[in-house]
Amino acid sequence: MVEKAEFPQVQIVDVRPQLGCGRYAVKRIEGETLRVTADIIKEGHDTLVAEVRYRPQGDSEWRSSRMTYSYNQDEWSGEIPLTDPGSVEYTVASWVDSWATWAEELRRKVAAGRDVTSELLEGAQFVRDAAAHADPQVRPLLEEHAEQLSGSAPQPERVHAALLPEMKSLMETAQRPEGLSTYDSTLLVSVDRERARFGSWYEFFPRSHASAPGSHGTFREAESRLPGIRELGFNVIYLPPIYPIGKTNRKGRNNALVAHPGDPGSPWAIGNEHGGHDAVNPELGTIEDFDHFLAAAKAEGLEIALDFAIQCSPDHPYVREHPEWFRRRPDGTIKYAENPPKRYEDIVALDMWCEDYPALWEELRRVVMFWVKRGVRIFRVDNPHTKPLAFWGWLIPEVRREYPDTIFLAEAFTRPKKLQLLAKLGFSQSYTYYTWRNSRHELEEYLTDLTRSEQAEYLRPNFFANTPDILHEYLQHGGKPAFKIRLVLAATLSPTYGIYSGYELCENTPVRPGSEEYLDSEKYQIRQRDFSAPGNLNEYIRCVNEARRANPALQLYTNLRFHYPDNPSVMAYSKSSEDGSNRLLVVVNTDPHHTQEATVHLDGGVLGLGHNSRYRVHDLLTGSSWEWHGISNYVRLDPHYEPAHMFRIEEL
Amino acid sequence: MVEKAEFPQVQIVDVRPQLGCGRYAVKRIEGETLRVTADIIKEGHDTLVAEVRYRPQGDSEWRSSRMTYSYNQDEWSGEIPLTDPGSVEYTVASWVDSWATWAEELRRKVAAGRDVTSELLEGAQFVRDAAAHADPQVRPLLEEHAEQLSGSAPQPERVHAALLPEMKSLMETAQRPEGLSTYDSTLLVSVDRERARFGSWYEFFPRSHASAPGSHGTFREAESRLPGIRELGFNVIYLPPIYPIGKTNRKGRNNALVAHPGDPGSPWAIGNEHGGHDAVNPELGTIEDFDHFLAAAKAEGLEIALDFAIQCSPDHPYVREHPEWFRRRPDGTIKYAENPPKRYEDIVALDMWCEDYPALWEELRRVVMFWVKRGVRIFRVDNPHTKPLAFWGWLIPEVRREYPDTIFLAEAFTRPKKLQLLAKLGFSQSYTYYTWRNSRHELEEYLTDLTRSEQAEYLRPNFFANTPDILHEYLQHGGKPAFKIRLVLAATLSPTYGIYSGYELCENTPVRPGSEEYLDSEKYQIRQRDFSAPGNLNEYIRCVNEARRANPALQLYTNLRFHYPDNPSVMAYSKSSEDGSNRLLVVVNTDPHHTQEATVHLDGGVLGLGHNSRYRVHDLLTGSSWEWHGISNYVRLDPHYEPAHMFRIEEL
Repeated sequence: MVEKAEFPQVQIVDVRPQLGCGRYAVKRIEGETLRVTADIIKEGHDTLVAEVRYRPQGDSEWRSSRMTYSYNQDEWSGEIPLTDPGSVEYTVASWVDSWATWAEELRRKVAAGRDVTSELLEGAQFVRDAAAHADPQVRPLLEEHAEQLSGSAPQPERVHAALLPEMKSLMETAQRPEGLSTYDSTLLVSVDRERARFGSWYEFFPRSHASAPGSHGTFREAESRLPGIRELGFNVIYLPPIYPIGKTNRKGRNNALVAHPGDPGSPWAIGNEHGGHDAVNPELGTIEDFDHFLAAAKAEGLEIALDFAIQCSPDHPYVREHPEWFRRRPDGTIKYAENPPKRYEDIVALDMWCEDYPALWEELRRVVMFWVKRGVRIFRVDNPHTKPLAFWGWLIPEVRREYPDTIFLAEAFTRPKKLQLLAKLGFSQSYTYYTWRNSRHELEEYLTDLTRSEQAEYLRPNFFANTPDILHEYLQHGGKPAFKIRLVLAATLSPTYGIYSGYELCENTPVRPGSEEYLDSEKYQIRQRDFSAPGNLNEYIRCVNEARRANPALQLYTNLRFHYPDNPSVMAYSKSSEDGSNRLLVVVNTDPHHTQEATVHLDGGVLGLGHNSRYRVHDLLTGSSWEWHGISNYVRLDPHYEPAHMFRIEEL
Repeated sequence: MVEKAEFPQVQIVDVRPQLGCGRYAVKRIEGETLRVTADIIKEGHDTLVAEVRYRPQGDSEWRSSRMTYSYNQDEWSGEIPLTDPGSVEYTVASWVDSWATWAEELRRKVAAGRDVTSELLEGAQFVRDAAAHADPQVRPLLEEHAEQLSGSAPQPERVHAALLPEMKSLMETAQRPEGLSTYDSTLLVSVDRERARFGSWYEFFPRSHASAPGSHGTFREAESRLPGIRELGFNVIYLPPIYPIGKTNRKGRNNALVAHPGDPGSPWAIGNEHGGHDAVNPELGTIEDFDHFLAAAKAEGLEIALDFAIQCSPDHPYVREHPEWFRRRPDGTIKYAENPPKRYEDIVALDMWCEDYPALWEELRRVVMFWVKRGVRIFRVDNPHTKPLAFWGWLIPEVRREYPDTIFLAEAFTRPKKLQLLAKLGFSQSYTYYTWRNSRHELEEYLTDLTRSEQAEYLRPNFFANTPDILHEYLQHGGKPAFKIRLVLAATLSPTYGIYSGYELCENTPVRPGSEEYLDSEKYQIRQRDFSAPGNLNEYIRCVNEARRANPALQLYTNLRFHYPDNPSVMAYSKSSEDGSNRLLVVVNTDPHHTQEATVHLDGGVLGLGHNSRYRVHDLLTGSSWEWHGISNYVRLDPHYEPAHMFRIEEL
């Protein structure tokens, strides 16, 4: 049998944006609005009304905002204001505006010269039906209108009364929605604070900042580095793991299998007799010292990002207290982490699908919440792709439900679909393949994929120009120009980017030819540096970060558009603020060795420039400016002088 | 708290094909296989197994076929055999092959020269676990293997035994799937019989086939036309409504408001005192005469498509028996159908959302089933877009559940998204905008959209070159060449196409300039024709239909590929059978007035031709053939001689 309840009168099709059929949330930033569109279809010619409904996840009451019919046939769109970080549910509803449908037909019949006696009686009935369910204050007014429509006044007068705008707005709220239909699924948008989109990251090892040469630095001593980082213009400091470091099978300098006395070990071998993921390496200080460091950073306008690495040294308390959380060999010993032929002897892997995995997952949440409650709101997650994807899909929303300002960065150097799925499951930001995209062609292709595909809805890149694990050969062989080029590209292609300490000194010696590892890697030893050594990039970095701070266009991401220099080594791209008042044009010579010249052909439509436009391009890196004319202009970039222009386009 | 059951160990993402997140079925033809792909992702390096699961809708047991890892990273694909018309559900499951994972690690460790004593013990344990749940016949074998692995034989021997293929296949079935995960949604494919994809339609009014000039023809008389239609090569006959025709406000010739005595009326004004949608117009004969006609057609290899138009003349029995199914005016009279300023005085519209719409919908299903049970299996639905979309989404699957060989063709000349939604909701075929796409550019753009977008999954066009409502000005002004051009295009661009009676005589006089209606339209009067009148296209049509019958490539749809003549009036496209053995190349001069020449540049990759290829092009329309060389060849098409080549590409 036909069941009445099963059939929507209005078909709401393909609500957008939508990710994985609503399985995953799209991402936005607080203060933005989410534009929601839907195809809304009904038979015949009824006048439809549509609204987007939304509510903070967990609320029972929907709010709503009216949708408007867009220029695309059958497409409607509406907007949701995203006022706070958190998760917001949304869906779409639509119904027939019977009054407007009737009024439109009346108008057409009158225009065709028809007698509309019957129609006016019908209209009067609509008004009477509405009156029956209306507020007591409105009811008399509606009843009066009904009398007027069905009354004895001349027909043109009654038609005029029926079509008055007051009548329309009165009936819009008074009548009951006819054929009310709702989209059969609830979608989700995850709203982050602005730092999830725009941030300048600096990674450093506090232990390398002792006041005495050669000794192990402490949080207290590392505080002295904070003003310098602030002066460079960074606003996020990412600390490699600060937890106690294992002693069993500790790695020595340059990843040696045996550590010498005094070798500090890799901070990713977490846990010893002083504690595990919720303790601080005593060599760095106490937990109170960490709190003090956090406060000192905050005073400088710097936010701390902690590392969250789900792995243990063999000395981690879990090994003793929860042997059931580890994989064991038939002889009962715990397995080391390995990916044959590679072995990681200083690490044992937690078995994330062990029999009692719920207890393990809860414990890991407790660890994260431990740091969240101390004030940490950014976590850089080490190798999330080697942990269950379902775990992240559970953990991140759990933490953000209580602390929606928490940001998770995924360090997943893995295959594209796995990297993307982590972002869909909740990571606010992702490490990317940026370090391995160095030519103009590679960068244009990669950034087009990131910003023009569905990925733009959920994957925010964090472009690190180097990391303690990645010293790309481009930097190894390109000298200082290479460091400037990769800095400018990272800092202007992506609104979130970072460098790892030593970049400003152009450190570029690999452990051996063909390796991306640093010689004397700071992962295994303390490296004190003279940050004002000759040849440093401090002033260049400060300048780039200042340009990012002062130009809203550089704080956005999907506004990236490529232009067309006639030289394959030169790339050009622009970013404009939404209102178009701030327009940046970056031109980069991707060849760190040779001077390159190009005529840069601009996409005039993107920048609001025409063949006859005259404007100034003001280089924010050098302060120079030129008057340009039209959409094709000449540039010459000597990498040993300035490999890039960061132009602000200004009215003359 | 973490609930174990919530978390899949393997993430199955984005199973394809998928339409509207599984809300709608994709379409295929019996005998085809459905290729299903999915991205399947798990942390780490486990060896995964994946299968596509499928079952006829309504069955409780799944069948399955193994998926294979495709060359795209993390993508798997498998196939479902579609043996019968009907609806088939499918989904994807995946799990870890623990034995294969272990064996792969063993292999790598052995290759790295490691001692694997512990690993072999672990392997033995896997085998023992499997033995514990295995069939009694297999158990001893497994136990023996376990003993062997953990035994005292030299390590290389035990490794060799562990890695034997027999061991792999034994364990594949014996071990229990670890981390079994299923896609969280069930998808649907709707399987039609071949006629839903490939058919040659001929529309005609039986009433115009009286043996005596001027009188109303009967089914018995119209049977005399069947051999002629069969000889033209058609295989579906579409009959305009055959039901009793209303008398109240009956339309006269050329849509006159008043009918003269003897005017037969529009057959779309359905119902009078002789019955409604389940009766036959007595002027055509009895229901037994219809059955006889159906059988006679079948004997000629012709299938009958009936018209299903949900509308009533004011004399329809429903008006008397079910006044509650109609919209009424305040004075109690039933409303005529109208779309101001247009009025359809001979029709009253059923109120498909009336209070008791379930009873009305059930009655309409009964009507369809009435004809289905008499042997009709194709319905051409009149204006489905003016009826509730949800109604079609209910009716069509209801009918096809019992009679899966039923085909519904939607005549929805409406906006694209509404037309598409009707197809998604279940229509097997759709009328299209073909008649209004006449230039090469328009046709290429339109066909690319149809065949290369998601529409290819669910929308099958039926390219009618004319209909009783549509005589395009291209035909009005282009003479016989225009009729040949539009015929060849329809018959080769789409595997399903049709013409309405009179096309073969190049009838092209509109009721008035600027109108697409025929003068003396057969909708309102009887039109007897001499089908062998001079200038007829009978032989041309026969030839086109014979080429369609003999060449499997023309019976397919999404195999359409465009090529590049250097003249914008000339279009070229090819179709190849799946195995490439049948290759057709159609070259059409879309200008019915002037001879056009072109060099046709072929996409060699599509046709398996290179710059040095030598081959024969054999024109199936004229029998001529040429030897062509390479991928660029010259054509000259005089529309008054032959406006098109329908080449079969043949080996020399």
